[in-house]
Amino acid sequence: MKTLPLDLGERSYPIYIGAGLLNQADLLKKHIAGSRVAIVTNATVAPLYLAKVRASLTSCQPIEVILPDGEEYKTLEVLNRIFDALLAARCDRRTTLIALGGGVIGDMAGFAAASYQRGVPFIQVPTTLLSQVDSSVGGKTGVNHPLGKNMIGAFYQPRAVVIDTDTLNTLPDRELASGLAEVIKYGLIRDPEFFAWLETNLDKLLARDAEALAFAIHRSCRNKAEVVAADERETGVRATLNLGHSFGHAIETGLGYGNWLHGEAIAAGMVMAADLSRRLGWLTAAETTRIEKLIKCARLPVRAPGTLSTARFLELMAVDKKVLNGRLRLVLLKRLGEAVVTDDYPRAELEATLASMREAA
Amino acid sequence: MKTLPLDLGERSYPIYIGAGLLNQADLLKKHIAGSRVAIVTNATVAPLYLAKVRASLTSCQPIEVILPDGEEYKTLEVLNRIFDALLAARCDRRTTLIALGGGVIGDMAGFAAASYQRGVPFIQVPTTLLSQVDSSVGGKTGVNHPLGKNMIGAFYQPRAVVIDTDTLNTLPDRELASGLAEVIKYGLIRDPEFFAWLETNLDKLLARDAEALAFAIHRSCRNKAEVVAADERETGVRATLNLGHSFGHAIETGLGYGNWLHGEAIAAGMVMAADLSRRLGWLTAAETTRIEKLIKCARLPVRAPGTLSTARFLELMAVDKKVLNGRLRLVLLKRLGEAVVTDDYPRAELEATLASMREAA
Repeated sequence: MKTLPLDLGERSYPIYIGAGLLNQADLLKKHIAGSRVAIVTNATVAPLYLAKVRASLTSCQPIEVILPDGEEYKTLEVLNRIFDALLAARCDRRTTLIALGGGVIGDMAGFAAASYQRGVPFIQVPTTLLSQVDSSVGGKTGVNHPLGKNMIGAFYQPRAVVIDTDTLNTLPDRELASGLAEVIKYGLIRDPEFFAWLETNLDKLLARDAEALAFAIHRSCRNKAEVVAADERETGVRATLNLGHSFGHAIETGLGYGNWLHGEAIAAGMVMAADLSRRLGWLTAAETTRIEKLIKCARLPVRAPGTLSTARFLELMAVDKKVLNGRLRLVLLKRLGEAVVTDDYPRAELEATLASMREAA
Repeated sequence: MKTLPLDLGERSYPIYIGAGLLNQADLLKKHIAGSRVAIVTNATVAPLYLAKVRASLTSCQPIEVILPDGEEYKTLEVLNRIFDALLAARCDRRTTLIALGGGVIGDMAGFAAASYQRGVPFIQVPTTLLSQVDSSVGGKTGVNHPLGKNMIGAFYQPRAVVIDTDTLNTLPDRELASGLAEVIKYGLIRDPEFFAWLETNLDKLLARDAEALAFAIHRSCRNKAEVVAADERETGVRATLNLGHSFGHAIETGLGYGNWLHGEAIAAGMVMAADLSRRLGWLTAAETTRIEKLIKCARLPVRAPGTLSTARFLELMAVDKKVLNGRLRLVLLKRLGEAVVTDDYPRAELEATLASMREAA
């Protein structure tokens, strides 16, 4: 097991990464303060791992909240089911929530923990590659709104993140690929050495080589932890973690949640961001080709859906959280391995990217 | 105009108290950072004060969100209408929310500000005595759940509190009395000199003597600001501000929100807390009589509704936020002017209070 610290002063916490961690009863227990625990999970993950987590909590009988599986359920309405369950069981302020599942579960259980009785402790136990390398770390929690993704939420840090890499054994191929989009992202925005490693080792990751996966997860979490420690509330550098997300969120919202996986939308979005960066003279055509090739190798889309027009794209992107005073800021690449957040790009170039980077309708 | 500071490090903010403050355009403006403003108010307050606030924001066209008036609308569902409006208007992260109304509006607009895009700035403009002396100060925000009051929310501080005492001119008598419950509370828990002042001057407050009201509001806010500065997230002394609230919340939830006003329920709850304190030997019968007399003079109830049985009371109190590890902690009075939070009381004495302090059914 490896332990990465996320340094946030009094809100600091450890990220544990290793095989078989869900069998280590003490790991969860030492981050549980009160006498009560509520496990929030979904109908897909529950049959696979709920018994294991329950077994490691021998001292208490946990509340179990099992939500439907899917991004389309990441709503205020479904969130309320968590509150219903906690209140029906009379859970008090010292109840610890455990988020057992992928990004949707982590985001919802985290926001429930942030809001229940104005804040109770919680622990992230991510079971998908995407949530292990990205969403479980850093305290972004929330739900979607019909008009925009992650529009309602809180910055609220967990007490610990427990990443059992064995859980990837049950992950469908499409979900694994989706997670790789965020892995590749770290290479693009701040870790060119890791990008090169991925070009060489992507096949191993797709083949679920345990050592390669453990390395990629650790390296991704280290990148994420460094960025979050520097800018917890995203007033600056943290926004670079959203490379491809302004485009990707527009795809997700435009198609309806659940049609494309998050990582798929982000993958196409990163290719679009790279294309716009090339148009601004920051990347060479050779570099955008390398990026596109790596993403394609990961079995991820490199074009936006043809059904979304440029006008619709612009409309959807106008509610992005990075809009400030009416200007849409985008994360772009100054060079391979260095991202910037900027609203200083010609609108015509953005439109050219939107027009050219789509599948045929 | 008087300005009270609430000292919370980088989250510090001023509380402005005075007559005609809503006519001072600069007061609001200097706490608005971005270019957009959304005013959240209700159908009762909007016709009275919305135009005035709008007029003081000459530089921008504010979004206006008008909610139905009443505690029964303090729900997650109605909260979502604020998000609908903000998103429909494409409000970005630098949009400032203004809560214009009583405690319900302040709590909801504050929680909306805490959650919209994971946090936007907000300003409290309380227009009822209760919200001016209590809920607008200190950053408690949230909504109710059918199973308990204020169960979903956040600690989230405003950028400023603007108390225009002129707004009390339009406040119904019953609402004024409801606010006096929280005023009296400060005397009971930590300011015996103020309690004595209230015994002498309550008639002036009921007659809406402007000078007396301004004094009482300032003194109440000063007490509140001192307590919040010492314990922002209620890990200790801040809980004493909840004198009467465990009983009072049970009354509100038990009767259905909106039947008794918040201050009315708290008034009866404070008399109950005083009664239990007497049973524990901490207050004399003469003191509980003084307390009951002052509350009665304020035209507030001094007994719980007869329709709530002791068993039902205990059931309702079991979901109180002050329950820790299954034990209900209560705010009680060690003496007149000094409160403690304790779970060290005989259950039988609590039951005796619940049984004896009810109206005839």
